Amino acid sequence: MTFIYGVDYYPEHWPVARWATDAKLMQEAGMNLVRLAEFAWARLEPRQDLYDFDWLDRAIDLMAEHGIDVILGTPTASPPPWLMAQDPTLFRVNEEGRRLTYGHRRAYCPNHPLYQMHTERIVTVMARRYAGHPAVVGLQIDNEFGDRCYCDICRGAFHGWLAERYDSLHEMNERWGTAFWSHIYTDWEMIPTPVATVAPHNPGLALDYNRFCSDSYVRYQRLQIERLRQYCPDRQRITHNFMGFGYPNINYFDLARDLDFVTWDAYWRHQWNMGNPAQASNMALSHDTMRGLKQQTFWVMEQQSGPGGWELVSESPKPGQLRLWAYNAIAHGADGIVFFRWRTARHGAEQYWHGILDHHGEPGRRYHEVVQMGQEMQDIGDAIVGAQTQADVAMILSYDSRFAFQIQANNPSFNHSAHFQEIYHTLHERQVTVDIVPPDADLTPYRLAIAPALHVVPEEVADNLRRFVDGGGILVLTARSGVKDETNTVVDAKLPGLFADLCGVTVSEYVSLAPHAQTQVTFAEPVAGLPATVAVSVWCDVLEVDGAEVLARYTEDYYAGKPAVTLNHYGKGQVLYVGTLSAPIYEVLTPLLLNLAGVQPVFTAPADVEVTVRHRDGRRLFFLLNHAAELRTVTLAGTYTDLLAEGKTVTDAVDLDPYGVCILTDLP
Amino acid sequence: MTFIYGVDYYPEHWPVARWATDAKLMQEAGMNLVRLAEFAWARLEPRQDLYDFDWLDRAIDLMAEHGIDVILGTPTASPPPWLMAQDPTLFRVNEEGRRLTYGHRRAYCPNHPLYQMHTERIVTVMARRYAGHPAVVGLQIDNEFGDRCYCDICRGAFHGWLAERYDSLHEMNERWGTAFWSHIYTDWEMIPTPVATVAPHNPGLALDYNRFCSDSYVRYQRLQIERLRQYCPDRQRITHNFMGFGYPNINYFDLARDLDFVTWDAYWRHQWNMGNPAQASNMALSHDTMRGLKQQTFWVMEQQSGPGGWELVSESPKPGQLRLWAYNAIAHGADGIVFFRWRTARHGAEQYWHGILDHHGEPGRRYHEVVQMGQEMQDIGDAIVGAQTQADVAMILSYDSRFAFQIQANNPSFNHSAHFQEIYHTLHERQVTVDIVPPDADLTPYRLAIAPALHVVPEEVADNLRRFVDGGGILVLTARSGVKDETNTVVDAKLPGLFADLCGVTVSEYVSLAPHAQTQVTFAEPVAGLPATVAVSVWCDVLEVDGAEVLARYTEDYYAGKPAVTLNHYGKGQVLYVGTLSAPIYEVLTPLLLNLAGVQPVFTAPADVEVTVRHRDGRRLFFLLNHAAELRTVTLAGTYTDLLAEGKTVTDAVDLDPYGVCILTDLP
Amino acid sequence: MTFIYGVDYYPEHWPVARWATDAKLMQEAGMNLVRLAEFAWARLEPRQDLYDFDWLDRAIDLMAEHGIDVILGTPTASPPPWLMAQDPTLFRVNEEGRRLTYGHRRAYCPNHPLYQMHTERIVTVMARRYAGHPAVVGLQIDNEFGDRCYCDICRGAFHGWLAERYDSLHEMNERWGTAFWSHIYTDWEMIPTPVATVAPHNPGLALDYNRFCSDSYVRYQRLQIERLRQYCPDRQRITHNFMGFGYPNINYFDLARDLDFVTWDAYWRHQWNMGNPAQASNMALSHDTMRGLKQQTFWVMEQQSGPGGWELVSESPKPGQLRLWAYNAIAHGADGIVFFRWRTARHGAEQYWHGILDHHGEPGRRYHEVVQMGQEMQDIGDAIVGAQTQADVAMILSYDSRFAFQIQANNPSFNHSAHFQEIYHTLHERQVTVDIVPPDADLTPYRLAIAPALHVVPEEVADNLRRFVDGGGILVLTARSGVKDETNTVVDAKLPGLFADLCGVTVSEYVSLAPHAQTQVTFAEPVAGLPATVAVSVWCDVLEVDGAEVLARYTEDYYAGKPAVTLNHYGKGQVLYVGTLSAPIYEVLTPLLLNLAGVQPVFTAPADVEVTVRHRDGRRLFFLLNHAAELRTVTLAGTYTDLLAEGKTVTDAVDLDPYGVCILTDLP
Repeated sequence: MTFIYGVDYYPEHWPVARWATDAKLMQEAGMNLVRLAEFAWARLEPRQDLYDFDWLDRAIDLMAEHGIDVILGTPTASPPPWLMAQDPTLFRVNEEGRRLTYGHRRAYCPNHPLYQMHTERIVTVMARRYAGHPAVVGLQIDNEFGDRCYCDICRGAFHGWLAERYDSLHEMNERWGTAFWSHIYTDWEMIPTPVATVAPHNPGLALDYNRFCSDSYVRYQRLQIERLRQYCPDRQRITHNFMGFGYPNINYFDLARDLDFVTWDAYWRHQWNMGNPAQASNMALSHDTMRGLKQQTFWVMEQQSGPGGWELVSESPKPGQLRLWAYNAIAHGADGIVFFRWRTARHGAEQYWHGILDHHGEPGRRYHEVVQMGQEMQDIGDAIVGAQTQADVAMILSYDSRFAFQIQANNPSFNHSAHFQEIYHTLHERQVTVDIVPPDADLTPYRLAIAPALHVVPEEVADNLRRFVDGGGILVLTARSGVKDETNTVVDAKLPGLFADLCGVTVSEYVSLAPHAQTQVTFAEPVAGLPATVAVSVWCDVLEVDGAEVLARYTEDYYAGKPAVTLNHYGKGQVLYVGTLSAPIYEVLTPLLLNLAGVQPVFTAPADVEVTVRHRDGRRLFFLLNHAAELRTVTLAGTYTDLLAEGKTVTDAVDLDPYGVCILTDLP
Repeated sequence: MTFIYGVDYYPEHWPVARWATDAKLMQEAGMNLVRLAEFAWARLEPRQDLYDFDWLDRAIDLMAEHGIDVILGTPTASPPPWLMAQDPTLFRVNEEGRRLTYGHRRAYCPNHPLYQMHTERIVTVMARRYAGHPAVVGLQIDNEFGDRCYCDICRGAFHGWLAERYDSLHEMNERWGTAFWSHIYTDWEMIPTPVATVAPHNPGLALDYNRFCSDSYVRYQRLQIERLRQYCPDRQRITHNFMGFGYPNINYFDLARDLDFVTWDAYWRHQWNMGNPAQASNMALSHDTMRGLKQQTFWVMEQQSGPGGWELVSESPKPGQLRLWAYNAIAHGADGIVFFRWRTARHGAEQYWHGILDHHGEPGRRYHEVVQMGQEMQDIGDAIVGAQTQADVAMILSYDSRFAFQIQANNPSFNHSAHFQEIYHTLHERQVTVDIVPPDADLTPYRLAIAPALHVVPEEVADNLRRFVDGGGILVLTARSGVKDETNTVVDAKLPGLFADLCGVTVSEYVSLAPHAQTQVTFAEPVAGLPATVAVSVWCDVLEVDGAEVLARYTEDYYAGKPAVTLNHYGKGQVLYVGTLSAPIYEVLTPLLLNLAGVQPVFTAPADVEVTVRHRDGRRLFFLLNHAAELRTVTLAGTYTDLLAEGKTVTDAVDLDPYGVCILTDLP
Repeated sequence: MTFIYGVDYYPEHWPVARWATDAKLMQEAGMNLVRLAEFAWARLEPRQDLYDFDWLDRAIDLMAEHGIDVILGTPTASPPPWLMAQDPTLFRVNEEGRRLTYGHRRAYCPNHPLYQMHTERIVTVMARRYAGHPAVVGLQIDNEFGDRCYCDICRGAFHGWLAERYDSLHEMNERWGTAFWSHIYTDWEMIPTPVATVAPHNPGLALDYNRFCSDSYVRYQRLQIERLRQYCPDRQRITHNFMGFGYPNINYFDLARDLDFVTWDAYWRHQWNMGNPAQASNMALSHDTMRGLKQQTFWVMEQQSGPGGWELVSESPKPGQLRLWAYNAIAHGADGIVFFRWRTARHGAEQYWHGILDHHGEPGRRYHEVVQMGQEMQDIGDAIVGAQTQADVAMILSYDSRFAFQIQANNPSFNHSAHFQEIYHTLHERQVTVDIVPPDADLTPYRLAIAPALHVVPEEVADNLRRFVDGGGILVLTARSGVKDETNTVVDAKLPGLFADLCGVTVSEYVSLAPHAQTQVTFAEPVAGLPATVAVSVWCDVLEVDGAEVLARYTEDYYAGKPAVTLNHYGKGQVLYVGTLSAPIYEVLTPLLLNLAGVQPVFTAPADVEVTVRHRDGRRLFFLLNHAAELRTVTLAGTYTDLLAEGKTVTDAVDLDPYGVCILTDLP
């Protein structure tokens, strides 16, 4: 197995005369893979049933001549005009009920039979043609799935989806509680899509619709996989390019299930994030999530190669950052880095989404940085590829809960993903390795499991967590956990519902704080050196203990003295319940938790130095990444080989340049 | 007559097996009324013409067995799916021109013939069935009327409405001044609804459309009342649940006219007001407005019983506040308190609109607070019910002016309702009793009448105010009064138009101040202890006196030295003209006015202690409500009986706990 | 030739009995022109083919009797209801894809054949009737052209427009680069309008659509001109009322080409600009732009006469400002001042757009100010009219670049018009005269030409600028110049593309700064007395010199030490390249440039005193306008005649009252 180092290439955007220059420059940069064709439908099928694959054959062959393999994208994310002109209902309807028009991409309805027919056709033709091509090593389905459609075809498909999910219309009405506001449906046909209107929709309907939209893309992807696999051998591995932790519209665990491996598109600087670019811990969380989808190493299919932008040009990556960010992916389990994109497009909506080369095509500082890393990958890539991550800590990501919070945020300052990120951040800055797992994952490998606001809780999930604790695990649950059953109904029991026995507490009442309002909690026995009192915002569960020990209490207002954080012994394990959704408390709680679970950092390092470890063949690979603009020093616990310094031995400490990277390994 | 103490109950949301428990808990809380069925259409008529009232019979009978009477809601605010599926045009079109879809409530067009046909049918069936039921003591029409519809059916109805209002199309064109921009309509059919577009609509058309929308609900309500009264005896009193002072879309004086009594929905904490909850003076103003609609006591039909919320959970009422807020209603004239709702819904859009009981159904702190008050009502309710409010001060609420300011705000910082509230607030914090009356009300009972920005002024209204002053009344008019005639045309005279003679001033020019811009006025003879100079924002009328005395002058800019506030003697009375719309000036003006009119506070008390008085049988009932989180002391003018302290006698002073309530009465 | 001094008058809004009073008051104010009828279609043609011009005849005759000439507006900006009721597709579709409805103005589609038919009819009737009327001296086409339409009729017209512009669909696809995202059009019919959707449209398509919309109005105007000229003699001069520098939707150079002269609507105080009213330099820029459209003097067709407003009333012009602002127009080349409007409308959407008279019609302070100026114009108007402006400095306004930045702003803090204004402002506050010219203008008259962000650059434009510099001109180019070719494609060369040789620099990379982010540059040799270091925001081009001299360098981040501002000798001229889009740098650069080009201010004066000069018959007319609220003194270079002081001679210095005006001329 070889470490993948490549780039997304669009030969159809450039004169054929230029292709050889590009291939040569790629080869000189140490690249061994390109992704091709994922937006090239119009060039592959200029008119219906009239195919032109010659140019693609030529491009693939040229790459092969330069020792570069190919991932082919199915081009369904961006259909040609002739296709979309066949029926206006091919276009997606957005949440405001407005039908899209031609002029961009991802505008199709994934449930449209006509679109599915065209999809099957183009995918079949591609599969037949390239199944036997030795340079074609993989296939990417479509591109960045996910926008929800609210059209009438989806509405009809939703009715079928519901009819499969519920035994009867009567059962659905009961589960959704449609007696409320007289929404009792007497025919499946009457059920609406939850288009944005004057008031919130029934939460049961709205959650099911979010699930249905997710399933629609899972099904649409499966339709493509089935066609491809009729012709393509297993050596041509099938993937899709995901969008990291933050993407909210698809249950990524479901989407990953049918794929051979996961890839994703890792952008640190976006036009829509000007002035507030992604932090290392957020990117780390995304990498860990992507690794967790199939519990295996992954690729970055679009690794940022310059400022990103559509109407706006984002902030520029500074010298060293492109390489640093690529190593950040590797540090968290990437076995492939594919940059997006080779050369900045001179035309089209992404004119300012910068490639390795600028519009003018001459190699510049970004190219040279990519070349440097290409050489490093040729030196050390073989030592990295396939190495595994081992974590003592799992964080539980529930897409059902995320979908539910999209419908009811509970508090204006609460965001489920941000809450998850804030807790992850406190682990990341302590150099703790984390796995991201679904609520039904086998938790036995972990000492500590954290379930932030695990809101929608089927019985099986409650059982799964109970088993984990019973067997000796440490579990953390935070406020708004256990509130809803599978149909988004509030449980008929004191909160945290199915978790109440596990936690040894009930919520006697909850207090939703206004924006900017604060209160505080005091810990009875804080970790040495940490403050006893912490400000709290957003949300306060006022707890009543039923067996649990009180770790911290509120100190203000009418619930002063009431428990805020509790610890319960259950079976061989322990359960921490955190009655607030506020972030600063984790500065105190996370050290306490790590102590409790006996979890150690990889190395102790400054908070802005990221340290991870991957394991292969009994040796450890330590990744030390300096995200600061200044030099940083990391104290070592022993003596290691410095892989990027031609195997030099380091001991005691290592200095990291600004944006510098160091990879250490155990002495042989 | 008994004081009504009850709750809104939705038996159709809960298992029948639970009903008896609920009824018993209600009875134990001293409740004597429930509202039922106002969203139950789908349970009453599961399919068209197929009725199922058995469950409601059973619920009513169960209540009756527990000594609890029933108000039945007509269920038309939330039609079932089978109804709305009959015709897409049944749905309302909003101001942006977008037709609503199924999934919430209040989505119907009130002018739709098909909807009116269904309405008449269900209302008639209910009336027939329950006209003779002794436990059914009243009927509520629909629920919280008001969202404007801009559909084609409304457009057609608007044409008919206009044809009735104007003698001819020609007259309408003249009154609206459609020569402007060539909008001269040559057929009623051409007249549009004022859907939001690129520029403001003709002000005459827009004001008439707002009136038409208000009238549409008045007519739709009348249609229901007429059907009900065909069968229901007068002892079954008919009401509708209004939405307080702030609700802007209906002329509530018109809507109240056809009803037997007024009820309203009093919420202090809303999800849409997170961090900026209602103040006591705003709620007091709403109560006073509701009392003023028919000049009689009223009920609260939905008294807040916990945090309110849809997507968000609002801030929690603190211990004591639910009771305090209920007494706030009583203090201002409520003869009934009906909490919304009994138990928090586990399903539906209002999952976070908390009832007295939480989702789990076990009595908690809010229930116990309701029980306490229930006991108090059993003790003292009979002493309160029917007691009247007597005010020396009237504030004039003109829905025509409010509708006009919705179309043209005049200044970005001006809001007519806020201006009204600001003046009311300065009276409230001085413990002055206020009546809210329409512009054509008989003003003879009052010493002081305040007309904030009385903008749209028919001749009759000017005459009414002139009569009041002539007879010795003190009248206050503020800037932007007298600007428009009935058709929203600017008067053909110097401002304040029809009021100019009454005020003894004209506006030589007006200055609309930019947001945040300030200037100032100086009073020649301020009330002792108050500042002579006050900052002014929003608006400055530069006045020219024509007989009036100048109380205050501007001190800056080119109009320095010009009159800002004037006082004119007219007949036996006096008229104060306030040439600005800015709030702080009332800290000086209100004391001056109260002196001038000889109006006294009920008691002198701290600003956050509310003091009101109700009168019955020659005795006074004093309500002292402490809205502060700390103890407050009120000095008394004599010796009284403390009703809540088992008739204990108090003299000199009384201490009020945080959120505490004291009710005093004259010694017998 | 007489100086035009008049007002926009709407006799159709007022009783006929009032007309004579109005005419007399106008005459007494020294007025010699009114604009009539431009919104009167419904009164001229109450029903299709039924004309009523009698009232207009009478109004014109009445004016003539008072010595007042008439400009007639064609009434097409606001069609009557009976016309728009003929076909719903007559209404424009806005960028969100929503069709407008009746109720305002400018709601028609300019490409609609039915609308064009009606237009030709009414225009022909007017032309025939008034071609021979001696008092009718001019015609205004429609009113304030410009809102873009995205309807299907426009879409079809766009296809035709494209087919004329490109040799073939294939060429268009190539030029737009539709291979990107598979947008290759195989039929003109497939091309969409760029309705706002989820992602940006193809930049080539979007720029062409903006051009097409501009051309649509140019063509629609030409249709009217051709009909008018069939009947109207040349003495009836044809114009349109433009909207100044800031109006972004039409290429005003194109629109002006077919007209005899340019007029525009000059508002300093708008409701939509409350708290942030127009500054003198912005208004000056607009006047200079309007003068530049045809390189000739112009009129103000709507000169502000009071607070402007629709829903809101804007801030009031202070005493003296109406006159000052009118002189500001004259100072920059106006030969006519027509106030908008005579009397404030009592009806309609513009009730708060105040005229010279208030709603009540009695003369007040604004009338008296207009009378004062009318007398002055009678005294000195003849000395002014026809006087020319002579500038050493040209600023290049590229509508293509403006249209392109509307599609891609490049940076969230960048606005092309604001960038242009910021540079102009630094010239204006130094009393430097500026011409505004198109990119293909003959630049030989100028010493200095400034091209702010000249983004879209056809070869001819590059050649034109090259010729100017070659011949000895000083040229300034700023960042984002030379980025795009005519089809909005990024050039295939290092930036600034076609200007690279001229500038002697290339952009090695660009850095788009986040909002509020700052860096700085240091000048090697700043102008004496000015700071060497300047803060920079928005954008940094990192330069590589290729022959140019470095004037300033960046001092921070990884590009510290790199050139930021360069000066290149080319031919007999010099080119300054400014690698940032940030405003403060011009406090240093503008003095440097003026030194370099040897450009002198008219007089040295305080920054808030505007000084301009017009030339006629070898004499100079100096306009000194004090925009400050305090007295200002201007030092003179010699002895002059003071025109407004009955020819008094002034020397040494002149004092200007607050908002005061002084007009000096060379001694005879």
